[in-house]
Amino acid sequence: MRVMGVDPGLTRCGLSMIEGGTGRKVTALDVDVVRTPSDVELQRRLLTISDTVEHWMDTHRPDVIAIERVFANQNANTAMGTAQAGGVIALAAARRGIDVHFHTPSEVKAAVTGNGRADKAQVTTMVTKILGLQQKPTPADAADALALAICHCWRAPMIARMAAAEAKAAEFKKQYAAKVKAARA
Amino acid sequence: MRVMGVDPGLTRCGLSMIEGGTGRKVTALDVDVVRTPSDVELQRRLLTISDTVEHWMDTHRPDVIAIERVFANQNANTAMGTAQAGGVIALAAARRGIDVHFHTPSEVKAAVTGNGRADKAQVTTMVTKILGLQQKPTPADAADALALAICHCWRAPMIARMAAAEAKAAEFKKQYAAKVKAARA
Repeated sequence: MRVMGVDPGLTRCGLSMIEGGTGRKVTALDVDVVRTPSDVELQRRLLTISDTVEHWMDTHRPDVIAIERVFANQNANTAMGTAQAGGVIALAAARRGIDVHFHTPSEVKAAVTGNGRADKAQVTTMVTKILGLQQKPTPADAADALALAICHCWRAPMIARMAAAEAKAAEFKKQYAAKVKAARA
Repeated sequence: MRVMGVDPGLTRCGLSMIEGGTGRKVTALDVDVVRTPSDVELQRRLLTISDTVEHWMDTHRPDVIAIERVFANQNANTAMGTAQAGGVIALAAARRGIDVHFHTPSEVKAAVTGNGRADKAQVTTMVTKILGLQQKPTPADAADALALAICHCWRAPMIARMAAAEAKAAEFKKQYAAKVKAARA
């Protein structure tokens, strides 16, 4: 499974591409950070991010996009920009029929370090170790994008089981409703 | 000047198209609300909004898009969805080289009612009157989208003067810096 990890942001947007193998084996294919200057109009910044992300999707053809889930209770202004960037990235995936999954920062930290409250240095160290990189990825946005993709690779089987269980529950509910209706008729 | 007004949102996204004439004359060309169900995946909701907005842009060919500026200090979850919707709309405009302007809710209310704290009913009443509509636009998102476009039509000359003044100030600063550099050499 090929996973594209995205740490969304207007000023710095981290992008990564990971190939997941059997078990916990993961291989880094690419990592980069898209930067857009804060004095450029919002719509032009979003266009730069969208163009780069679309180029990555069309070049690497990922099976799924893992995006960091943003909460508005962080820095309010930054959160809005991050949401706007995340929106155009999710849109680019939807246009290509690529699955999108959101993971919270603590899910990502827990997946790669075993601690949902790990700091940036711990995440970077573990990402470097897991992927067997020669040097630590910088800046932090690059390491975060790699951590997101690793997190998705490792959580994917659980997510698939959850989806299957939910589909089964929905099917059961439907059958049950039909039976109740038939019994009442 | 043809202005497209957008009241962004995932559940309901208000769209309007207004033609501004001389003075304060404004004519409504179109108004609609795009709805996407909350049980659909985020990326598919954004795709529906983007496709509709792009169709409007390509059909009506507006000169400018006026979008409501969202603040994160409202309902946090709603604000993130609104920001994501606003992001894909700004992106669609950037792809077409259409200008984008953001107006705050109080700027819009002040422009159409004379009161930055007017309620939804007052905004709807004034929009109906200004555009000479046969009946009140519903839901509120449709009226808000019309109010946004009217607001932009009326604020546009002031925005143009501000931009000209800022460009002049930047030019002056550049010349002044050059003179200081020359004097020091």
